[in-house]
Amino acid sequence: MTSDVFQDHYPDDVSHCYGCGRLNAEGHHLKSYWEGDESVARFTPRPYHTAIPGYVYGGLIASLIDCHGTGTAAAAAHRAEGRSMGTEPPLRFVTASLKVDYLRPTPLGPELELRGEVLEQKARKIVVAITLSAAGKLCARGEVVAVLMPESMGMRSG
Amino acid sequence: MTSDVFQDHYPDDVSHCYGCGRLNAEGHHLKSYWEGDESVARFTPRPYHTAIPGYVYGGLIASLIDCHGTGTAAAAAHRAEGRSMGTEPPLRFVTASLKVDYLRPTPLGPELELRGEVLEQKARKIVVAITLSAAGKLCARGEVVAVLMPESMGMRSG
Repeated sequence: MTSDVFQDHYPDDVSHCYGCGRLNAEGHHLKSYWEGDESVARFTPRPYHTAIPGYVYGGLIASLIDCHGTGTAAAAAHRAEGRSMGTEPPLRFVTASLKVDYLRPTPLGPELELRGEVLEQKARKIVVAITLSAAGKLCARGEVVAVLMPESMGMRSG
Repeated sequence: MTSDVFQDHYPDDVSHCYGCGRLNAEGHHLKSYWEGDESVARFTPRPYHTAIPGYVYGGLIASLIDCHGTGTAAAAAHRAEGRSMGTEPPLRFVTASLKVDYLRPTPLGPELELRGEVLEQKARKIVVAITLSAAGKLCARGEVVAVLMPESMGMRSG
């Protein structure tokens, strides 16, 4: 595959996440990619992703931050090994901890932009800071502590 | 209304949350109620709420914790005023900050149980600690900092 999208390179057996799995027919299909040292993803909520009418519900924001965080961690882990995603072995990360600060109500309608930055990186644990903006305004800040997926969760060994 | 469910008493104009609004046709309709000093909610994920196959995706867990937290805050605020939900003025809370620790993968299939406890309570800010269990096993811990909804978000004044 030649896609720049991190999630396009997740192995088939771990590509069913409702937030970002390309094989989940019902889900959000979040797609993250590098822009320099920052990771970026864009997502337009559906009209029913409401909190209070006119605003995006917090659970969606948390979900997008979560998936963008684990995606960024996977990409950063490959990059640290000097190889692109899609090369073997695949490195897939899951969330150990998620924190979201809702700074202002997020308007429902505009495309949301997520930008991620790696704060800390070890082989098995990567911390990603993420901002979520709508129409150029910062609406939420998140932090994802992502850990390398244990083989017991179904990831084939690399 | 005589319902014990916190969300059943949210005013119509703020009952559209995807996570817990009774007027959101597409959403989760989470329902929270007191059991003594603990708040409880139960939710059975759909088959497509997948993370890795066999496990619940983290965004749903965050969403349930979020809505159970704001619901518990609203109920606690009414209780502190010595009146039941459904009496005027209604008090509705929104999330300022959400933290979720994923302690173990949450199996997809069993009903999830959320239990909330108020950690801190002021008139406009309430902190709720929440556990999420599946089949009797603790899978995630959350903390929700909930603040009284500003009138600018659409809540009619009480």
